[in-house]
Amino acid sequence: MDTLRWQEDHLLLLDQTKLPLVEEYIECWDHHVLGEAIKKLRVRGAPAIGAAAAFGVALAALNYQGEDPQELEAEIKQAVDDLAKTRPTAVNLFWALKRMQAKAEAHRGATVEDLKHILLEEAKTISEEDRAMNERMGQFGVELIPEGAGILTHCNAGALATAGFGTALGVIRAAHHAGKEVSVFADETRPLLQGARLTAWELMQDGIPVTLITDSMAAYVMKQNLVDLVIVGADRITANGDVANKIGTYGVALAAKAHGIPFYVAAPVSTFDLSLKTGAEIPIEERDPEEVRGFGDAVTAPPGVHVYNPAFDVTPAELVTAFITDRGIFRPPYGETLQGLLKEE
Amino acid sequence: MDTLRWQEDHLLLLDQTKLPLVEEYIECWDHHVLGEAIKKLRVRGAPAIGAAAAFGVALAALNYQGEDPQELEAEIKQAVDDLAKTRPTAVNLFWALKRMQAKAEAHRGATVEDLKHILLEEAKTISEEDRAMNERMGQFGVELIPEGAGILTHCNAGALATAGFGTALGVIRAAHHAGKEVSVFADETRPLLQGARLTAWELMQDGIPVTLITDSMAAYVMKQNLVDLVIVGADRITANGDVANKIGTYGVALAAKAHGIPFYVAAPVSTFDLSLKTGAEIPIEERDPEEVRGFGDAVTAPPGVHVYNPAFDVTPAELVTAFITDRGIFRPPYGETLQGLLKEE
Repeated sequence: MDTLRWQEDHLLLLDQTKLPLVEEYIECWDHHVLGEAIKKLRVRGAPAIGAAAAFGVALAALNYQGEDPQELEAEIKQAVDDLAKTRPTAVNLFWALKRMQAKAEAHRGATVEDLKHILLEEAKTISEEDRAMNERMGQFGVELIPEGAGILTHCNAGALATAGFGTALGVIRAAHHAGKEVSVFADETRPLLQGARLTAWELMQDGIPVTLITDSMAAYVMKQNLVDLVIVGADRITANGDVANKIGTYGVALAAKAHGIPFYVAAPVSTFDLSLKTGAEIPIEERDPEEVRGFGDAVTAPPGVHVYNPAFDVTPAELVTAFITDRGIFRPPYGETLQGLLKEE
Repeated sequence: MDTLRWQEDHLLLLDQTKLPLVEEYIECWDHHVLGEAIKKLRVRGAPAIGAAAAFGVALAALNYQGEDPQELEAEIKQAVDDLAKTRPTAVNLFWALKRMQAKAEAHRGATVEDLKHILLEEAKTISEEDRAMNERMGQFGVELIPEGAGILTHCNAGALATAGFGTALGVIRAAHHAGKEVSVFADETRPLLQGARLTAWELMQDGIPVTLITDSMAAYVMKQNLVDLVIVGADRITANGDVANKIGTYGVALAAKAHGIPFYVAAPVSTFDLSLKTGAEIPIEERDPEEVRGFGDAVTAPPGVHVYNPAFDVTPAELVTAFITDRGIFRPPYGETLQGLLKEE
């Protein structure tokens, strides 16, 4: 199972809205189909969105039929602009688009043919690097996981949220591979149930013990001493260490704090946005009220009931025990350590 | 709309599993149908379960065809035993059953005809008293509600959870009637969505502004200063003030504490079980895993995934700002004030 896979001349995307009951790939032949897939959450998870968007730019280049490198550059610019509008919160999207555009600019003067090749290779590199980063993150993170640990996670920060292996689930996978006999509580993660549909499915496929709970049970399983640590992914991390992640993460972090349970955030460097000082500056996507009024075809709330549906929340840095990144583990005070991270780039 | 209504010779129960899309009443002609309705949550909410069970005992008496008062007493005993097995956590069930049985015992020597009449009247009294208690609770509680308050509630502690008016929603109703312009955030309350299906519906019917959110959003709306207080109901409250209530209540209480937001529990005296010292002694019902594996008719998790599905959790007394009861408002230290409550009985 691959989250995304380049196949000769087009991108295959596993349609995550159909999991776990149907495994179906969408064929993306242009960046519009791909952009729609990002909007509709057919592909989701900050690193996976970044990798998919990079292929979207490559597709826009490949679809250019002319011979004029300047025209091609305009096409690329247009694709970057289109893809940047799909979702506002995950910074990896903008990171990947910027990297693709920078690559194109760095090769001004190349032929159209060469530029197409260069951009496709860059998208493949982003994807491969993501997988490798996740494996590295897993290796760094594994030391934080005690033998036999009960681990709670929220949403899906797994192979399905990345180009492979996963961030939060990557660390859990690494601990499992190291024989640590971990078991996982997966919050179902309303409204779109990524925990129930994706995390539970991914872990079952790998034979890692998983117990599905509703989001509202997280605090209670902590109180019953069933949770030794929490690991989640992130959609954007600001310079002070504030973390935007799937709605509900903040409540989990508060509950972990109340029970003295370590709360870890696993994310590659591309998730850090040091241009923002604090989480208050992160744009939070609000989604369709219908997501909360039911699920799939099941309507469960009174038609037309007023709904608030933020897709993300912000967990303040002081609730984060440590960040697990592809460059190692970062502990407070984050202001300094994160600036160190920036300098290496 | 009535949660339950005695109609000449049988009980009508609003089938809450079909709300909000269908308003349908079940006819209960015997205590077995009624017991099934309690098990299946067609009627739910601690006070409503108590009132319904009282009518169940009355139905068992009315259905006795003989003339022997001792045989009738055995029938009553059997109905009490059957109904006591329907759900373990809400203490109002046991309270109402005990009260019906005590009434029968107090009238040993009465004719079968008289006893039938006495028990039916007692069930009606329990139901009427519940409604009156809720209105009294509303009057006591209204002083705690600031003008224009944003109020968060979890599950449904409304008219639908009682014989009428509601406990937590009764206080909100009283504040609304007093012209305080309150508005409500209703947690949807997975897995069975009593917040989405019942609380949102009830409040919309009364014209009280309500915003539906997923359970995972509660902490985030608090952080955004949208919530001035939390009010919930209770299924059982122990001598020290620990509160068993719908799963998720504990997480809401932790989030309220972290934001310095008052957390109130509204419950009639029948919800207090002073025979238990702390919440650790309360039996917590675990329900069918399928409730968590899906959403309405939609299957959303991998078939057979391991699930933990406690229907309630326990919020420790130290997180409860005050209890709103039909005998007034009780503030910490609860050990003493709750004993005072007991002595009055």
